[in-house]
Amino acid sequence: MTDDLSGPASVDQIQTGTLPIFADHRGSLGVLEFPKWLPLVPVRLFWITDVPAGMTRGGHAHKRCAQFMICQGGRIHVDTYDGVRERSFELKAGDYLHLPPGIYASETYIEPHSRALVLCDYPFEVDDYIDDREALTIRS
Amino acid sequence: MTDDLSGPASVDQIQTGTLPIFADHRGSLGVLEFPKWLPLVPVRLFWITDVPAGMTRGGHAHKRCAQFMICQGGRIHVDTYDGVRERSFELKAGDYLHLPPGIYASETYIEPHSRALVLCDYPFEVDDYIDDREALTIRS
Repeated sequence: MTDDLSGPASVDQIQTGTLPIFADHRGSLGVLEFPKWLPLVPVRLFWITDVPAGMTRGGHAHKRCAQFMICQGGRIHVDTYDGVRERSFELKAGDYLHLPPGIYASETYIEPHSRALVLCDYPFEVDDYIDDREALTIRS
Repeated sequence: MTDDLSGPASVDQIQTGTLPIFADHRGSLGVLEFPKWLPLVPVRLFWITDVPAGMTRGGHAHKRCAQFMICQGGRIHVDTYDGVRERSFELKAGDYLHLPPGIYASETYIEPHSRALVLCDYPFEVDDYIDDREALTIRS
């Protein structure tokens, strides 16, 4: 399966930052402008919500798909692995990660009502997923 | 200000539908594919969250910007007006509205944790907003 990877990715390539949030008594508004703040051309988005506090989701890498993952609220702990090294992040509302392909990632939704929005530059394909974390070590 | 409108819009042009939601014990995942299911080319997105239950937001039309508004959870009541006629919608998780420019819209976040994701085909510009609902009646 690793034959399809375009090249070894490194956790050092993961970019992180924070989008603007405008909050007042009416609630919060978070904003993302393309292409200025978005380092990929999205063809798909998905959002994750209603996750029981403490639950871990994800647990795969993508062969081709890069992802721009935004925390829309709560707190999300993200563990990443490139086959050699690990790197962890903690996202609160407005924080994002830009994950290149070839990075294994799993997300733990720490607080109740933690939720994520993910923009992807590749369509959904079952064959794009690498579910076996140890498959990445072949590349090291 | 109405000089900048590209043409009269009608509430009949508002499209509505429901995106796929995949729910299990780990939570819910909602998905949107471009351009297949998205009738505009997004250049910006924003999300609205942490709105007190019963609060109304929005309350404006856009001169040029079309919006694709998705309910990410809870329940949102949307009132629209084209200067002649009114039309109301109630969105639950996964439901969307495609609002053309020139439609006045206000959104009431009915339930706690009701939240919206909005994709826009025009950048943020203060001059794109029509805050005065009655300004639309000039066009009728």
